Amino acid sequence: MDKLSVVKIGGNVIEDATALESFLTDFSHMTGLKILVHGGGKKATAMAHQLNVPVKIVDGRRITDALNLDIITMLYGGKINKSMVAQLQSIDCNALGISGADGNAIQAVKRPVKKIDYGFVGDIVAVNGSFFGHLLAEGLTPVCCAITHDKKGQLLNTNADTIAATIAKTMSAYFEVSLWYCFEKQGVLENIENEDSVIKVITPKKYKKLKAANSIHSGMIPKIDNCFDALNAGVNVVKIGAAKMITGNENHTTIKINDE
Amino acid sequence: MDKLSVVKIGGNVIEDATALESFLTDFSHMTGLKILVHGGGKKATAMAHQLNVPVKIVDGRRITDALNLDIITMLYGGKINKSMVAQLQSIDCNALGISGADGNAIQAVKRPVKKIDYGFVGDIVAVNGSFFGHLLAEGLTPVCCAITHDKKGQLLNTNADTIAATIAKTMSAYFEVSLWYCFEKQGVLENIENEDSVIKVITPKKYKKLKAANSIHSGMIPKIDNCFDALNAGVNVVKIGAAKMITGNENHTTIKINDE
Repeated sequence: MDKLSVVKIGGNVIEDATALESFLTDFSHMTGLKILVHGGGKKATAMAHQLNVPVKIVDGRRITDALNLDIITMLYGGKINKSMVAQLQSIDCNALGISGADGNAIQAVKRPVKKIDYGFVGDIVAVNGSFFGHLLAEGLTPVCCAITHDKKGQLLNTNADTIAATIAKTMSAYFEVSLWYCFEKQGVLENIENEDSVIKVITPKKYKKLKAANSIHSGMIPKIDNCFDALNAGVNVVKIGAAKMITGNENHTTIKINDE
Repeated sequence: MDKLSVVKIGGNVIEDATALESFLTDFSHMTGLKILVHGGGKKATAMAHQLNVPVKIVDGRRITDALNLDIITMLYGGKINKSMVAQLQSIDCNALGISGADGNAIQAVKRPVKKIDYGFVGDIVAVNGSFFGHLLAEGLTPVCCAITHDKKGQLLNTNADTIAATIAKTMSAYFEVSLWYCFEKQGVLENIENEDSVIKVITPKKYKKLKAANSIHSGMIPKIDNCFDALNAGVNVVKIGAAKMITGNENHTTIKINDE
């Protein structure tokens, strides 16, 4: 099986032009097949303010109404995605920018309204593995923004972490997949106040111990649960750390299912 | 040789949601392989005003500075492109939205500064025919916005008519290509004040006569010259008319090189 890296970058990289350039150079040097997934960070909120579009937050969750979806589509699907593709093309990475609508790459449903109506937010129902497979076979590197569609004409704002995990899970039928979550820390910390306390490896047994000892920050628990979910679905390994970890030379947390 | 239709739509269709929906339905019904090229009409100017970005016009030509390029990338590459792709996907047309940077589809150079510095405007140097060929072979319908790149990391605003013509010319090495220019009139008019005076067929001989009799509006002359240029480069036929002409049932002007 060929190796495939699915890399997700967050707002901290996207919002810093120097950090982004450095990351894209590192990404272009990663060997093997690869897919990049990106969100848009705080740029959407800034643009909403600029355009006098109200940003609605309910219970700490952002609501995506039609005008905010337009902003997200312009920023994530347009400016951020196309700028990254152009930069990657300049360093000989044959990038192709897509949303989930393009080639029916990622189909979703509008999140059902229960206590909260999140608006145009998508819950993924299917990743088009054969489409991604064809692109990779042509030597292309898909660059996916955090937008899906419902196949009925509606674009949907979708969590980039979830997109990366779902692509990784689907592609593990065809490839040996590693899933890389780049974020603002060096990895999962045993002590949130000590940046040097990166936990090198988390296996199911270790995870149990860490949780029992209350050693993992509560905000990381659902993230790590999702990582194990991806591993159980066939993903080979998950890495969590700063963007620089993709060079292979940096401290980070490896999450794997095998306890050895 | 397989048949390929390259269809360009302009602002009058894009700016009218009902007209756009009707056009996309007609487009999805066109038989054979197809590529759609779109500009963005006046939406970029409206958004520039909303964002307090000055729009600079020199000698009637719009200058694309960095901020205006951002707006164009957000609108053409993001909102307009992705919305059209989602709509096409809902009517079973497997659309893939791209800029010229994606897959290195269309490479350009920043227009050299002579009398006027147009800013980030691209003159096309190469269309990646094998990339378009692969997409078409996978059953995908490329939807191209009017943005190219210089392969050095810079996106460039590029005339959509020229993009359509250059794609058509390049693809005529592999396909029997028809090039469709949809605009606000029913076709090339013999009398600009009479919408019923559509010239059905223009051949080189007929064109000479029409020009000698001053029967063609001066604004159309460079457009028709470009059509003959495309025909001389291998394009099979060029059609000029209203968006509805793609159904095959509407009046329009056919431009062809064969005088019979």
